[in-house]
Amino acid sequence: MESKGLQPMDSEQLRENAHKMVDFIADYYKSIENFPVLSQVEPGYLRELLPDSAPNQPETLQNVLDDVQAKILPGVTHWQSPSYFAYYPSNSSVAGFLGEMLSAGINMVGFSWITSPAATELEMIVLDWLGKLLKLPEDFLSTGQGGGVIQGTASEAVLVVLLAARDRVLRKLGKNALEKLVVYASDQTHSALQKACQIGGIHPENCKLLKTDSSTNYALSPDLLSKAISDDISTGLVPFFLCATVGTTSSTAVDPLLSLGKIAKNNGIWFHVDAAYAGSACICPEYRCYIDGVEESDSFNMNAHKWFLTNFDCSALWVKWQFLPVENENWGGILLEFEVKVPFSNEASIALHMHDRNALIQSLSTNPEFLKNKASQANMVVDYKDWQIPLGRRFRSLKLWMVLRLYGLENLQCYIRNHINLAKYFEGLVAADSRFEGCKYCLSCQLAHLTWDKPLLGLVVVTPRIFSLVCFRLLPPNNNEDHGNNLNHDLLDAVNSTGKIFISHTVLSGKYILRFAVGAPLTEERHVTAAWKVLQDEASALLGSL
Amino acid sequence: MESKGLQPMDSEQLRENAHKMVDFIADYYKSIENFPVLSQVEPGYLRELLPDSAPNQPETLQNVLDDVQAKILPGVTHWQSPSYFAYYPSNSSVAGFLGEMLSAGINMVGFSWITSPAATELEMIVLDWLGKLLKLPEDFLSTGQGGGVIQGTASEAVLVVLLAARDRVLRKLGKNALEKLVVYASDQTHSALQKACQIGGIHPENCKLLKTDSSTNYALSPDLLSKAISDDISTGLVPFFLCATVGTTSSTAVDPLLSLGKIAKNNGIWFHVDAAYAGSACICPEYRCYIDGVEESDSFNMNAHKWFLTNFDCSALWVKWQFLPVENENWGGILLEFEVKVPFSNEASIALHMHDRNALIQSLSTNPEFLKNKASQANMVVDYKDWQIPLGRRFRSLKLWMVLRLYGLENLQCYIRNHINLAKYFEGLVAADSRFEGCKYCLSCQLAHLTWDKPLLGLVVVTPRIFSLVCFRLLPPNNNEDHGNNLNHDLLDAVNSTGKIFISHTVLSGKYILRFAVGAPLTEERHVTAAWKVLQDEASALLGSL
Repeated sequence: MESKGLQPMDSEQLRENAHKMVDFIADYYKSIENFPVLSQVEPGYLRELLPDSAPNQPETLQNVLDDVQAKILPGVTHWQSPSYFAYYPSNSSVAGFLGEMLSAGINMVGFSWITSPAATELEMIVLDWLGKLLKLPEDFLSTGQGGGVIQGTASEAVLVVLLAARDRVLRKLGKNALEKLVVYASDQTHSALQKACQIGGIHPENCKLLKTDSSTNYALSPDLLSKAISDDISTGLVPFFLCATVGTTSSTAVDPLLSLGKIAKNNGIWFHVDAAYAGSACICPEYRCYIDGVEESDSFNMNAHKWFLTNFDCSALWVKWQFLPVENENWGGILLEFEVKVPFSNEASIALHMHDRNALIQSLSTNPEFLKNKASQANMVVDYKDWQIPLGRRFRSLKLWMVLRLYGLENLQCYIRNHINLAKYFEGLVAADSRFEGCKYCLSCQLAHLTWDKPLLGLVVVTPRIFSLVCFRLLPPNNNEDHGNNLNHDLLDAVNSTGKIFISHTVLSGKYILRFAVGAPLTEERHVTAAWKVLQDEASALLGSL
Repeated sequence: MESKGLQPMDSEQLRENAHKMVDFIADYYKSIENFPVLSQVEPGYLRELLPDSAPNQPETLQNVLDDVQAKILPGVTHWQSPSYFAYYPSNSSVAGFLGEMLSAGINMVGFSWITSPAATELEMIVLDWLGKLLKLPEDFLSTGQGGGVIQGTASEAVLVVLLAARDRVLRKLGKNALEKLVVYASDQTHSALQKACQIGGIHPENCKLLKTDSSTNYALSPDLLSKAISDDISTGLVPFFLCATVGTTSSTAVDPLLSLGKIAKNNGIWFHVDAAYAGSACICPEYRCYIDGVEESDSFNMNAHKWFLTNFDCSALWVKWQFLPVENENWGGILLEFEVKVPFSNEASIALHMHDRNALIQSLSTNPEFLKNKASQANMVVDYKDWQIPLGRRFRSLKLWMVLRLYGLENLQCYIRNHINLAKYFEGLVAADSRFEGCKYCLSCQLAHLTWDKPLLGLVVVTPRIFSLVCFRLLPPNNNEDHGNNLNHDLLDAVNSTGKIFISHTVLSGKYILRFAVGAPLTEERHVTAAWKVLQDEASALLGSL
């Protein structure tokens, strides 16, 4: 044998270089306020700065870091900047970062229990921990025979449960019933649902996005849902999936889980709750009410990588244990006893029932020879490959575990409350400037947050702030609504072009609305104050030029 | 406003703690040979070691690291151990690790170009670099209007192109043609294909896994494929997708791309090439021949996270530019001019043609209001959200860029060749022990690697070693094949239970075969020698006890 050449995993090289990288990253955070929040480069900027092909000979880390500084960072939109208020946050934290480091350090691929038992078991345990902080019902926890799994994104979470629900009903009705299957959600639901339908072969016209408006603060009306379901059943369609949202992407609308869940249950529909953004707030007792009714759902999702200090990606999905007597299910002659996996349990009787976790596994499992092993064959373990789209998976529970342990519940609650207070503060600033329209925060509005389905008293002009997102807009001069949308579009462009802040937009009832989402881990009151100054200045300039 | 409480992203806290983590990880690699390669814990071990719920108050990093050492690492299967020879490798490297650190440090979410232009543009550039190292045809590169994208896994890669192909044909034939669509592959194809079919609603009986055997070294026979396609067309089915593999998971079989590709082209079938494992070897001129014929394919995939030193996950997928005159496509009246995205190009004529990259985008794009922005609306940029299942995505190109730059092509070629040499060395050890059956390496066998479709001369007993995987088995005493499979199953169990090495298995033509996959970044000749000693010792013990 010849010389060994490259030593790509030498521990002392790792130590030396990784210490350098730590300092580079720490220095980045020290100077993060010096960068434009939204990158101001032009399309194609990078190709001109980099060679056409990979080098033949190695370069030094310093070379690469110099290029990161000079060529990459100018093209980065700084999601961790304290002046980032766009979309929703995507939190980094010291704990989350350490978890990512450790996960990348161990670099194992945990598709089956045996390929790293700790990865599977820590994920089950940590999602039980998080489920308990959210006060999810026992039947969502792995100790209650439901269980959690970390998906990459909420898109993948809704996709896997949609597929489980689809296959559950197709096993009853036959594959050719696919064209009859109907999905329900509000028109405020994240586009991920439509994409999931498209992937799963649901006919686009059967993905029914029911209309919402300001009368329910853009929440889905149970009455509309009931009517849609009856209408569809009467024309021979098969309702099978309902997606409700707690904290929509546009405006943090909260669908009424309890009423919707009862309708779903009465119609044998899989009920999924997407609380990707707002779920984090529900660890605070005063916000837990927004997921009241989750006990009626079959699956629940929140993104720890949004507003919960766990670096991207970490989307927590729980699926519920649910008793469904076998006699109610006609599974085409498949004997369920041979299918159901009941880890860590000896209760044979459980094998006589179906539950949703198992529907997920039935839909997504593969069992090729090269992955067979004793623990899996004996049904003694969870193999998360059967709970997700990909086969391989990273050790993502480490970072969530670190966030929970290095911060603790009380700090995490404080973190959430601080952002909500900052959003309230911003809301007050908007309300005090008569050129703008925001949520005129008042008792009736406050009540409306909790009893959304009562008609509002007309005081909420845009839509209420519930969590840490403020929706607002610049009023068009002379109430000339013809110019309102362009005006706000131009204001968005103007403030983002300053590089001082980054905000985003939505459209509600035809009106172009600006979104100010507080939630970056470095944001303090002074950043909100400064952001408002930028908005006011750019608004003055725009209005002055009209 | 109250006190700010938690400071989760303080740069000096990050610096201090991340330096500690670096040392923890470097020390892990220093001592990695002390751990059992395959974790020896029992199912449920971790729940007994951890509390039932998250703490209210923060804990120290040292607490957590102590727990990692005492409770997590015993449950880890050490994929980076030099004595890991199971499945396929999943390489870590200093460069890959640094890239992961930087990506987690910046922690941005690059779904659209605007959310971090550098992330999208570096990905395009680096996949062009890698495509050039693999000598992919120009029409797979973004400079040639095709382009690469990093998926999480090969499962997602095959899924997205399957969906693109499905929707392309359904747009012609109507949604209800789904039940007629047929997919082809060999029975050696990764189970990810079947899972993709299941997700995409392809009827299971229309996922045709054509039989292979030792006469073609388990490669797919073009004759069988042609016949299957004709038969299916004659019964009214619609062939639409072919997946060939270069380096199957079982035995590194290489499907003959050129012949298969021509059949696919003649039948208007999307041709995908899965070179997840073996693609890495094709950066060496002497192995490039195994992907000859890739020019006939529509999409090509290799996993940089397997054998290319780029930490998991980094699965590179390229889709090809392909001229298809519009008049051959009946797109239900949709004017393509308004659909086709041609980034960084002003050639209006291109808008008159379809290509596969666009089929991908047509299948997976969403365009909700809250994500609209100038650059995307003007079709000036690539938005990778439309090339993948999830919306959010990490800055994964950084680690691949670092691997290419910090090592350079020549070192990477040397790395691959070193592993192949180690596999040859192991092969020689097996051949020298008459109790075992391996590949009796000889000229005819060597030729067979290149001219697989000629009948072999009968000297290959298990299946030839082509790359860094050796398939072998212990011969049953007295040629009593009744015991052969149990014997090898027991040998696998015995060697893995020692904790000294980890290997895996497959079944070929009904025979239980052991797989010895060289490819971990720390593996040296001495580890292969020691592994063989473990195998011989355990074999002696087993044979002695018979």
